[in-house]
Amino acid sequence: MKRVAVVGAGVGKFGVRKASFRDLIWEAGKACFDSVPAVKPKDLQGIVVGSVMPERTAFQSHISSLAAEALGIKPSHLSARTEHMCASGTVGIRYAYAFIAAGLADLVMVLGVEKLNQPSAEEAILNMGTGVDREWEASYGLTAPPCFALAAQKHMAKYGTTEEQMAMVSVKNHNHAAKNPYAHFQKGTTLEQVLCSRMISTPFRLFMCSPITDGAAAVIVASEERARDLTDKPVWIQGTGQALDGFTLSSLHEDYSHWPALKRAGEAAYQMAGIGPADVDVAEVHDCFAIAEIIAYEELGFCDKGEGGRFVEKGLSDYGGTVVVNPRGGLIGCGHPLGATGIAQAAEVFWQLRGEAGPRQIPEAGIGLTHNNSGMGEHVVMVYGKERP
Amino acid sequence: MKRVAVVGAGVGKFGVRKASFRDLIWEAGKACFDSVPAVKPKDLQGIVVGSVMPERTAFQSHISSLAAEALGIKPSHLSARTEHMCASGTVGIRYAYAFIAAGLADLVMVLGVEKLNQPSAEEAILNMGTGVDREWEASYGLTAPPCFALAAQKHMAKYGTTEEQMAMVSVKNHNHAAKNPYAHFQKGTTLEQVLCSRMISTPFRLFMCSPITDGAAAVIVASEERARDLTDKPVWIQGTGQALDGFTLSSLHEDYSHWPALKRAGEAAYQMAGIGPADVDVAEVHDCFAIAEIIAYEELGFCDKGEGGRFVEKGLSDYGGTVVVNPRGGLIGCGHPLGATGIAQAAEVFWQLRGEAGPRQIPEAGIGLTHNNSGMGEHVVMVYGKERP
Repeated sequence: MKRVAVVGAGVGKFGVRKASFRDLIWEAGKACFDSVPAVKPKDLQGIVVGSVMPERTAFQSHISSLAAEALGIKPSHLSARTEHMCASGTVGIRYAYAFIAAGLADLVMVLGVEKLNQPSAEEAILNMGTGVDREWEASYGLTAPPCFALAAQKHMAKYGTTEEQMAMVSVKNHNHAAKNPYAHFQKGTTLEQVLCSRMISTPFRLFMCSPITDGAAAVIVASEERARDLTDKPVWIQGTGQALDGFTLSSLHEDYSHWPALKRAGEAAYQMAGIGPADVDVAEVHDCFAIAEIIAYEELGFCDKGEGGRFVEKGLSDYGGTVVVNPRGGLIGCGHPLGATGIAQAAEVFWQLRGEAGPRQIPEAGIGLTHNNSGMGEHVVMVYGKERP
Repeated sequence: MKRVAVVGAGVGKFGVRKASFRDLIWEAGKACFDSVPAVKPKDLQGIVVGSVMPERTAFQSHISSLAAEALGIKPSHLSARTEHMCASGTVGIRYAYAFIAAGLADLVMVLGVEKLNQPSAEEAILNMGTGVDREWEASYGLTAPPCFALAAQKHMAKYGTTEEQMAMVSVKNHNHAAKNPYAHFQKGTTLEQVLCSRMISTPFRLFMCSPITDGAAAVIVASEERARDLTDKPVWIQGTGQALDGFTLSSLHEDYSHWPALKRAGEAAYQMAGIGPADVDVAEVHDCFAIAEIIAYEELGFCDKGEGGRFVEKGLSDYGGTVVVNPRGGLIGCGHPLGATGIAQAAEVFWQLRGEAGPRQIPEAGIGLTHNNSGMGEHVVMVYGKERP
């Protein structure tokens, strides 16, 4: 298997954007090309685009071809869109990674894009329901907020996790986002503000939830030979893992505060990278709701099971702690343009490991991790490192 | 790079189906498992699902997880949906292929599914427009039929290709489909019937167009080690190529009767497989419209450029000819449930190379090819063989 590295990254502004799908693609694509001047669009052998529902939000499928053309890329080896709900971008990185690792390509862009906001807010909210099983769950109201709220309630009952601890995740991530020019929210927040925001699905208040966000992000992935030509600071893909327990809530282990698939995905990625949780300096985890970050601490091994609430309360997931989690602001602070999220996480890790994260820089970051769930029972983890694997 | 083989295949009934998305998945998945009894759902390490627009047609994204759960698969290594309009299934095969070739997995199902028919025929037709650039072309009426009609008109003007020759593609494929229990159309047809069917987009008459079809298909792909355990007749993936000239019509070479990207994709696949066009015994090409099959003969090297019309007229693409093209009935005879098409093509090649194609069997078929376009400027080709590459 060949070694694979990220050699460039760019992120467009996340938010409620008065921009077309194509505008968002141009913005992130250009930022990505600007980050690695040695690469011209025509040098790329392919493009993979992570995107969930352009068919609904822009009446447009076939989005990798649209993106290729918009960016002047002429795929000679691969072109495809990937979709895996909230993990769509990261499964796209894995597509390009596998192609390059197998020796089938050398230089590929992976772009994530989503335009979720619609003229009607109701339509935008309704669209998010496509990610949940329509026949058996979504049609009865079991969309993402109540699903994750069940995990939160169980975690509170079983481990004593508090609303305040969940709010601390939001405060940390909003305050991180305030230092990120690409984030949806850039004002920071306070514990009081989070706890006084309106209730969405008990115990989640508005500020504990990721918003409906438009945005795009891109990375360029290369074989070792190409990476060496293009940059003296490649960021290597050291490990990856994906695991699925089930799609519908009813198929999962009855204790929703345990996410075994995340544990397995993390262990697979750690094993492949030859590292353990203690080696991780920066982690971009999937805080779609505040409880998800707390459970991710535990399943990824940053703290013991049940200790996630106390982990954030003690500041151990912030600068100066055990591991800096979500320095770019996470999904709660940056927003969650589904297909773009995994790519923006990879971009943040890329900048952190290269020492280019500006006011968000984590000193001497050498190993970075990204995590996405696409439901409580489905997880994907990537491990990136400065050192050649 | 590790060798990769197809070890099982199953196809559900194509047609206007009174079935849910899940029903179609169950049907094809079960048929696929039945074809390789040594594989149980829990043995699979992952699933890739090719599907274009479940968001529109079933208000459902996240379809690989739905399929995994429906079939009792617990992905431990990969799960993703792929979309590339009409090539969505084949880019899914390439995802699994790259994963296995890189040594990242050993045993993966690739399933394609599409439920295109809707209560309203207008809605179903409208949905197909998502595959074309909405902002710059589809909104002005330049959807798939007129696009391909421009190619047909140019081919007629430049090479003397006739309506009768295009109709012969339809007759051949409809008559092949009559021997395929999974095909949408099973009555066969005549030249007169094709030429008297109503005009859709000059020069395409109804019977020269692939219909709006529901359906699903699945294959199981394995590493060499696993394949040897599971079957004594693996069908090897010997080569693959993908190339893109452009997405919008205005970005293409002005002579729409030439499809250089198909030529390049074919050449890449031939080179990788170490074969040439004369070695191909069976080809499943993307006859979304009759002209597409004629141009595919030429760009894939089965005949000289401009000779495609005469190639079919002489019977050279039928049983007893140079290469049997579309023995299952093609998109015109089988229908075209977008994401399922590439998988059903692979299944047909799998059966043909194993000598299991029943009344459609091509004697001593040793090399098979599949081709999909997703627009005139975008093509993907796979080469399969009985011999270990």
